[in-house]
Amino acid sequence: MERIRCVIQYDGTNYAGYQVQPNGNTVQAELEKALKKMHKGERVKVTASGRTDSGVHAKGQVIHFDTPLTIPESNWRRALSSLLPDDIVVSSAATVDPGFHARYDTTGKEYRYFVWNAQEPDLFKRLYRYHVRSQLDIEAMNLACEYLEGEYDFTSFCSPKTDLKGDKVRTIFKAEVKAEGPEVSFVFKGSGFLYNMVRILVGTLLEVGLGERQAADIPAIISAEDRESAGKTAPPQGLFLWEVSYD
Amino acid sequence: MERIRCVIQYDGTNYAGYQVQPNGNTVQAELEKALKKMHKGERVKVTASGRTDSGVHAKGQVIHFDTPLTIPESNWRRALSSLLPDDIVVSSAATVDPGFHARYDTTGKEYRYFVWNAQEPDLFKRLYRYHVRSQLDIEAMNLACEYLEGEYDFTSFCSPKTDLKGDKVRTIFKAEVKAEGPEVSFVFKGSGFLYNMVRILVGTLLEVGLGERQAADIPAIISAEDRESAGKTAPPQGLFLWEVSYD
Repeated sequence: MERIRCVIQYDGTNYAGYQVQPNGNTVQAELEKALKKMHKGERVKVTASGRTDSGVHAKGQVIHFDTPLTIPESNWRRALSSLLPDDIVVSSAATVDPGFHARYDTTGKEYRYFVWNAQEPDLFKRLYRYHVRSQLDIEAMNLACEYLEGEYDFTSFCSPKTDLKGDKVRTIFKAEVKAEGPEVSFVFKGSGFLYNMVRILVGTLLEVGLGERQAADIPAIISAEDRESAGKTAPPQGLFLWEVSYD
Repeated sequence: MERIRCVIQYDGTNYAGYQVQPNGNTVQAELEKALKKMHKGERVKVTASGRTDSGVHAKGQVIHFDTPLTIPESNWRRALSSLLPDDIVVSSAATVDPGFHARYDTTGKEYRYFVWNAQEPDLFKRLYRYHVRSQLDIEAMNLACEYLEGEYDFTSFCSPKTDLKGDKVRTIFKAEVKAEGPEVSFVFKGSGFLYNMVRILVGTLLEVGLGERQAADIPAIISAEDRESAGKTAPPQGLFLWEVSYD
């Protein structure tokens, strides 16, 4: 058996999220369906760095699986891509040490969130951007970002629907907001992220950007350790799992 | 009865084109369905400046219809938009002279076509861009554009499937190619365009951009008055009906 590691991209618009579930089409199910075809009907389990929610996209999701096939490393990418639908792409594939684990070995993740900040919506961006009509104060949001960087218990930024058993302490290495005309992008790099954490971070930062909260309110929101203290959960279509890091 | 003129946008991805047809969902059918709801089940016929093909988008399609309703002009846009699916948007609506006709009164149209010119495809642009891997010679394409401007019989750039009875003489006021990094855009302004004309113009220009034809071949292609003499028909998803002009 060989272990294969792939970097994949997907457009989450038409999926009920990454992870296989009883109802609805998922990215994992499409990957396993393609692999099943390559393996003469045998199921091949795919493990990802983590799940993404319905409507959330990925530019750099990482997966691994084990295979008895002896396909040259360089052919995996094309072979698998040709069996996948148009909205899932394999960016790279490589043979890795059988000890490699796409989920347990992650050392960090980067998420990006995109907002279309203009009076008028842009129809052709609706699947990949969250439309915010009122002008955002980028400086205020960046000030708030500074309070988010560091190691904290991020319970306030975690959906109560989480099935997480362990603690909610995570480290945000970097949080930053950039604007280029009406395109506003949020970058978050961290050790790991809780359920809906990035979308709640963005929802809270947007409230700062709209003047509904102050940047200096962030420490109190964090220390409340209460989901009610933070802002709304921003919608899924603006969110991209951008990169997953390993040692 | 009042005549209402609307500018509409649509994402053509999920439509079998603009015009109502027996099989498949169309933009016109969605518009008429929304108007039927507003008119207590009565059919309201919608007339557009022209059709667009399956997968083709519109930023500035113009339509008109007649209504017995006395809704203030300023409310039409929102009323109609609220009954339309997410991928059709009414940009503006106004009461016009009952003699106005969205199709017969056009004095010109602008189409734009977008190419993603990079080695790697961009998954998140696939619905709105045509991916061309090899680097395009923008200067050569602009040279070819100069030969296209003017009044000519454009039979060579018209699909043989056209049901047009009249002549194929049209005037191209402006043809231009611009590049911003991997984003290449084609702009065509003309008196009117034949069936598939813009897509055949783009397909031919791309062959010039790839060095498969010379810019100076264009006059001979035009004068052949033969579809076989021009290049391939570029795929629909890069094409946008950008603006329709009236006096």
